[in-house]
Amino acid sequence: MNNEKRVYTFGNGKAEGSADMRNLLGGKGANLAEMNLIGVPVPPGFTITTEVCNEYFEKGKERVVELLKSDVEKALANVETLMNSKFGDIDNPLLVSVRSGARASMPGMMDTILNLGLNDKVVEGLIRKTNNPRFVWDSYRRFVQMYGDVVLGMKPTDKAAIDPFEAIIEKVKEEKGVKLDTELEVEDLQKLVTLFKQAVKNQTGKDFPEDAYDQLWGAICAVFDSWMNERAILYRKMEGIPAEWGTAVNVQAMVFGNMGNTSATGVCFSRDAATGEDIFNGEYLINAQGEDVVAGIRTPQQITKEGSLRWAKLADVSEEERASKYPSMEEAMPEIYKELDELQTKLENHYRDMQDMEFTVQEGKLWFLQTRNGKRTGAAMVKIAMDMLHQGMITEQEAVLRVEPNKLDELLHPIFDKAALKKAVVLTKGLAASPGAACGKIVFNAEDAAIWADRGEKVVMVRIETSPEDLAGMAVAQGILTARGGMTSHAAVVARGMGKCCVSGAGALVIDYANKTLKVAGHTLKEGDFISINGSTGEVYLGAVATKDAELDADFTELMNLADKYSRLKVRTNADTPHDAETARKFGAVGIGLCRTEHMFFEGEKIKAMREMILAETLEGRRAALRKILPYQQADFKGIFKAMEGCPVTVRLLDPPLHEFVPHEEKEQRELAEIMGVTFDYIRNRVNSLHEANPMLGHRGCRLGNTYPEITEMQTKAILGAALDLKKEGVVAIPEIMVPLTGILYEFANQEKIIRETAEKLFAERNDRIDFKVGTMIEIPRAALTANRIASKAEFFSFGTNDLTQMTFGYSRDDIASFLPAYLDMKILKNDPFQVLDRNGVGQLVQMATEKGRSVRPDLKCGICGEHGGEPSSVEFCHIVGLDYVSCSPFRVPIARLAAAQAAIRNK
Amino acid sequence: MNNEKRVYTFGNGKAEGSADMRNLLGGKGANLAEMNLIGVPVPPGFTITTEVCNEYFEKGKERVVELLKSDVEKALANVETLMNSKFGDIDNPLLVSVRSGARASMPGMMDTILNLGLNDKVVEGLIRKTNNPRFVWDSYRRFVQMYGDVVLGMKPTDKAAIDPFEAIIEKVKEEKGVKLDTELEVEDLQKLVTLFKQAVKNQTGKDFPEDAYDQLWGAICAVFDSWMNERAILYRKMEGIPAEWGTAVNVQAMVFGNMGNTSATGVCFSRDAATGEDIFNGEYLINAQGEDVVAGIRTPQQITKEGSLRWAKLADVSEEERASKYPSMEEAMPEIYKELDELQTKLENHYRDMQDMEFTVQEGKLWFLQTRNGKRTGAAMVKIAMDMLHQGMITEQEAVLRVEPNKLDELLHPIFDKAALKKAVVLTKGLAASPGAACGKIVFNAEDAAIWADRGEKVVMVRIETSPEDLAGMAVAQGILTARGGMTSHAAVVARGMGKCCVSGAGALVIDYANKTLKVAGHTLKEGDFISINGSTGEVYLGAVATKDAELDADFTELMNLADKYSRLKVRTNADTPHDAETARKFGAVGIGLCRTEHMFFEGEKIKAMREMILAETLEGRRAALRKILPYQQADFKGIFKAMEGCPVTVRLLDPPLHEFVPHEEKEQRELAEIMGVTFDYIRNRVNSLHEANPMLGHRGCRLGNTYPEITEMQTKAILGAALDLKKEGVVAIPEIMVPLTGILYEFANQEKIIRETAEKLFAERNDRIDFKVGTMIEIPRAALTANRIASKAEFFSFGTNDLTQMTFGYSRDDIASFLPAYLDMKILKNDPFQVLDRNGVGQLVQMATEKGRSVRPDLKCGICGEHGGEPSSVEFCHIVGLDYVSCSPFRVPIARLAAAQAAIRNK
Repeated sequence: MNNEKRVYTFGNGKAEGSADMRNLLGGKGANLAEMNLIGVPVPPGFTITTEVCNEYFEKGKERVVELLKSDVEKALANVETLMNSKFGDIDNPLLVSVRSGARASMPGMMDTILNLGLNDKVVEGLIRKTNNPRFVWDSYRRFVQMYGDVVLGMKPTDKAAIDPFEAIIEKVKEEKGVKLDTELEVEDLQKLVTLFKQAVKNQTGKDFPEDAYDQLWGAICAVFDSWMNERAILYRKMEGIPAEWGTAVNVQAMVFGNMGNTSATGVCFSRDAATGEDIFNGEYLINAQGEDVVAGIRTPQQITKEGSLRWAKLADVSEEERASKYPSMEEAMPEIYKELDELQTKLENHYRDMQDMEFTVQEGKLWFLQTRNGKRTGAAMVKIAMDMLHQGMITEQEAVLRVEPNKLDELLHPIFDKAALKKAVVLTKGLAASPGAACGKIVFNAEDAAIWADRGEKVVMVRIETSPEDLAGMAVAQGILTARGGMTSHAAVVARGMGKCCVSGAGALVIDYANKTLKVAGHTLKEGDFISINGSTGEVYLGAVATKDAELDADFTELMNLADKYSRLKVRTNADTPHDAETARKFGAVGIGLCRTEHMFFEGEKIKAMREMILAETLEGRRAALRKILPYQQADFKGIFKAMEGCPVTVRLLDPPLHEFVPHEEKEQRELAEIMGVTFDYIRNRVNSLHEANPMLGHRGCRLGNTYPEITEMQTKAILGAALDLKKEGVVAIPEIMVPLTGILYEFANQEKIIRETAEKLFAERNDRIDFKVGTMIEIPRAALTANRIASKAEFFSFGTNDLTQMTFGYSRDDIASFLPAYLDMKILKNDPFQVLDRNGVGQLVQMATEKGRSVRPDLKCGICGEHGGEPSSVEFCHIVGLDYVSCSPFRVPIARLAAAQAAIRNK
Repeated sequence: MNNEKRVYTFGNGKAEGSADMRNLLGGKGANLAEMNLIGVPVPPGFTITTEVCNEYFEKGKERVVELLKSDVEKALANVETLMNSKFGDIDNPLLVSVRSGARASMPGMMDTILNLGLNDKVVEGLIRKTNNPRFVWDSYRRFVQMYGDVVLGMKPTDKAAIDPFEAIIEKVKEEKGVKLDTELEVEDLQKLVTLFKQAVKNQTGKDFPEDAYDQLWGAICAVFDSWMNERAILYRKMEGIPAEWGTAVNVQAMVFGNMGNTSATGVCFSRDAATGEDIFNGEYLINAQGEDVVAGIRTPQQITKEGSLRWAKLADVSEEERASKYPSMEEAMPEIYKELDELQTKLENHYRDMQDMEFTVQEGKLWFLQTRNGKRTGAAMVKIAMDMLHQGMITEQEAVLRVEPNKLDELLHPIFDKAALKKAVVLTKGLAASPGAACGKIVFNAEDAAIWADRGEKVVMVRIETSPEDLAGMAVAQGILTARGGMTSHAAVVARGMGKCCVSGAGALVIDYANKTLKVAGHTLKEGDFISINGSTGEVYLGAVATKDAELDADFTELMNLADKYSRLKVRTNADTPHDAETARKFGAVGIGLCRTEHMFFEGEKIKAMREMILAETLEGRRAALRKILPYQQADFKGIFKAMEGCPVTVRLLDPPLHEFVPHEEKEQRELAEIMGVTFDYIRNRVNSLHEANPMLGHRGCRLGNTYPEITEMQTKAILGAALDLKKEGVVAIPEIMVPLTGILYEFANQEKIIRETAEKLFAERNDRIDFKVGTMIEIPRAALTANRIASKAEFFSFGTNDLTQMTFGYSRDDIASFLPAYLDMKILKNDPFQVLDRNGVGQLVQMATEKGRSVRPDLKCGICGEHGGEPSSVEFCHIVGLDYVSCSPFRVPIARLAAAQAAIRNK
């Protein structure tokens, strides 16, 4: 114990604590004290310190109760005075809440007890006072249940088992023949209390405590005990919160908004949470409880008159009806409203952020129950941050920190028209694989997609799952909908790369390719029927739901500029086409961190030549096919270099296993045999011989370039040839050639040698030269472990954290669906490591490789090009370990820019 | 330059250098000096120091030749005096050899030139002297070719291109209509010399040097240059040899054994290289060159009379014929023989090891050309080491170091009878997957194997490739032969585990399961036909070749006891059956490091229950099936614990992906559907849903135990139940329960909790308890990286270096055949990392995990249970990083024991 003082009181504008005593009073306790200090009326109460929690586990329950007794009684007397009522008094009872409150937020981990102080006699007094027997009996039965579960240990430890109180409620409802709790009447509630108490007696062998102080001590000890319950321990372990921090206990007077027409309850926001506009707004109900505002049984009324008028217009309510039945608080309770408005302004100014507040008016007296920074949409987030900056409320750095990077996503993609959405029929829900809204006619394959799109139709491509052969179709579709595949399935990854809306893994879809139909939720849809999908929620709608394009406003631009001012990490993009490169540049990318060459091979003639190359019997056969591919590749690179003029472009050499390129259907194999002038059997056998048990760990990456060096030669020629062509046109290309899947120094060294030799040959032929770098992906654990060796030859590292995660964890992205959801449920994993970079394992390798690499080559350029490059927490990690850049799909560039700025500000 | 002296002479029992000047004179130079010093006659010569090599690259060719000139001339004059001939002299020419010789052995990396000093005139003098024009012209043409290639740069740098001299030889042979070089006559050889010199002139524009000194300087500089050739640089890089070490140059007089009947040449061994017996032996030929002894054109004669008599008996040669036509050297040249015998004893005593020597007698004078430690069989290795120990020649530690651990393999497995093998017809050659010899009747599947074996027939199981379903067949077969699969295929790994002979990947086999035939090399073999396979060489023989069992003699036992005396690492075994456990104990294993439970599931009723478990729809269905499996498992464990009484047994919980257990053929699926009372469609769909894109990275290991905790519960009950049963019988079982494939602390912690809870429940039921440990495999890179976290819960680590290698390199063992051979060829990899532990990458993880683990749990027991546990260099690494034990297949236990001792002695 650092402090002899165990109990801190607050109330009536006074408090023994304050906001900066968070460690001692917990977050909630410090905040309650603070609100008092700035003159916001909150129900009075007191906080028992976190140090008492440690004392509790040291000295035991009895001793601590003894130590606390007089302090708690004194503090409670203070509350009684302020509330003009008495704890345990029959006629004028004071009820209290008992809540935990640790230094760090641990949502849902510990227990809360409300309405404490009720017993069979107090109930009667309270009914007299509130004139609302149903409310009082409902409060009572809730209290007995809550207290029974939390304090008396009635709640079963086995999650699957049924709470004994719930079982009683079910039984009573059944007897009465009703379904909802709200259908129970006063007598039923009374009966429940009796049955509850019997259950307590039966199970614990003791009577339910009637004495208010007995109840209070029981609750206080239960809150301390909950600090050591299993889920709290697990949570602390996951979050790295030390057990010694302890929890405080907050005891606070209950107030009621349902004590007649001078009472009310409501919620309000200091600004508009949807648009961010600087307008005070909210809803309230007279003579009601907090629950009633959100329950939807009564129509809540607006706080401000302006809001009320707007509401009436939208709800088609006449001014007469509005003014009489739904007056605003501003009109109905002008005095209270004035106080509320002043206080909301005070709170916003104090906390310097948009506030989401709950209040209760008990018999003409306004109480704030809670204030917190309000949740808001992405658009509101940007607007509020910029407005507050302009209003001088926050600094530039604070403004940058105010916007959650992921929320920007909402601003970048098309969205559904809100009105249209309300009427839409939801067919099913899949995974929100790639954000945005799309609406179009159903097509079932890439060819049809191309045909319909050529006709000028908007299409949504519906597939069981996608493969590289579907790329052309995905490119022309408005969106992609698949029945199978997770967040990292082919469809999802490619769609995100394209910034195209995608819903994946909608398992309820029954797709029939042969008949071109789609069955779902009793509907049978045909090719050409309209469908709409929401890639931000995973919802699938029947018919056409109108969409509208995203607009990037001045606030957004200002925010992005601010971000760049503070960030150290550069943001590049992963782009395989000139179009993607242009999009990314528009979003602020300063280079390409990953240009995959394999996507270029899937169109028309290219795939044919590629297949010839793969299936050729001889080196000469391969060379001949590669000669056909060279001009296509060179043209592709020229387009991309041009779109990224003056910025570095990292081109990765051929990476995927060759069997991804060859046809697996007999028909196509026969066609190919004819084209190549070989037998069908030959093709079939060659294709079969390319089959691998674990293709992810097979013959791919630079294992291809080392066994077929002619591929590396061709690609080098195409890359540097394109750059030389552009040089003639006065366009500056900055190529960086990247070797994939390096695991061994010599593997890289051999590729580097081929690249440099090919380059010198080409430069001699063309009588011109160009600067370029040769580096490697670091995506094999061994490459990270031996990075000092590899950096002796490689000029840059690009962390391929997708593969690195696969191999570090031993997870195949295609196969994790069978256990990942369970792992997340069981908290074995905090996040999907393919979405959020695993700092302890994968991150350790990234850091190790960066340090080892720079130990031999101090100017080694290091970046990341996995999916993590656009995920804010991963971007922060990249900043911390000192990478030079992150690279992500075009539509995540703004997110990465903001995350990079936040990382820089937070880790200064 | 540390030394002003650049040239060190040797000859006639004197030398300026000695054996301890290896760094300055290189290995060869120091050894030549040493032989002189101990009185062994070697052709005189001199060594140019390694420091001159550095000087050469610093100051350049001309300057170094200038600096060396007088020293070399002086040294050469000394040689002329000793050899009584003159360099470049026409009548009495001295010829010399010029050889490289670095500090470390770099076999084949640098160049050698023989017969230097020949020219058109000297040739004539030498013919007069030797009276052997063919030999002289052949020497001359060889010299021109060697000198042209090495010194004049005629050898093409492109390996694929043809050597211009070889092209000329081919042309001359073609014109003459002969096929072999030996068919060329004197005139042809003369013609070759002329044509060779023309080629040199054409290509280099210069005449071939006729002057002997010009030749000498050219050769010396070429040897220095070869230190910087590409393959030497690559070799040094791979071996970590610094370029500054440099190479020395050795110039030595040539001597000739074909100068008449007082000349001879031969090779001899100080002990028997096949059996290890302490008997001097060897072969020689009078008036011959070294090549003739090995070329097989003339029948070589024995050195000793005893050897000659033995030879005659074996070769069926009468004593008369022997004595007249094939007398021993002891009889034919008694004086020389006496000298030779004395010198061989001297050399063996000096080098304290069995010597393999080359000698030449030139006109009655004996010269030693070379001595080195002789290669020998495994049996000889053991016998010589023990004999020399008993003879007081070497210490115990030296004796332990004298035996190559891998060579012990030869002693442990059945071998073919040598005489029988000579007559055997080789059908084809596959991979030497698991050593030993096997002979039996062909069967094509496990069922047939069981049927034939039950009848008492010996069978060899022939499969295209094996799967777990073949286990029962493999167990009863003498050996396994497969058409597909590498050194780490299922067949190979399982066979090595069983200590059973296996030849895998014999691609020439055409196997027809339907007709039960096997076609190879023009033969069609049917079921029941005899076949023989050699798992130590990969050879496959037609018919029955007699085999004999290995016998372990007293020398072997003594060696093993010595090994245990000096080793620190314990050796356990990987064993899944009581039989394997007993075998391993016999070989000295002190525990089981890996008991895989999955192999137990493949027999009869067990596989049925297992399949029911996997395909059950509900938890209850799985539990019901597991209840059937429990008694089988418990019985299995009881057998194993009993066989390993008093020793720890590490049992790994279920590891492989579930689809390995389910039937993939329609017939079996239908049967199973009937047994389970479900539809065939249901079974087919469930089996299909278990399919994984990359099963190695899929739903396996503790991912199973965490998603199906009931499996872990059942296995824990079976393990501890078996141990409790045995306790009652007075048998001490020491179970260690091992969680496979841990990657995350919580993954392990959850399993550990289930195990401990199940154990406590069982102990309560049985009213008895037993000590046991709970630990984990470390086989996922992330587990190694976060080992400090995992060790907070795990009581032991067992490194599964098979999987750890797969994931650290990103290699699937099933798929590496497409690039691994190329990688080994290209020296991208020095070894197959699945055979020899990769110290830089995988080893780094092993070391890191051990250190991190022990940082939080100092007494953490660490072992290795991958295939590497029985590979000597990997065992040494395990010793170095401080592991507690290695675990390997039973037949590798002696190898591991010896390797462990050597590691301890070498790394003291």
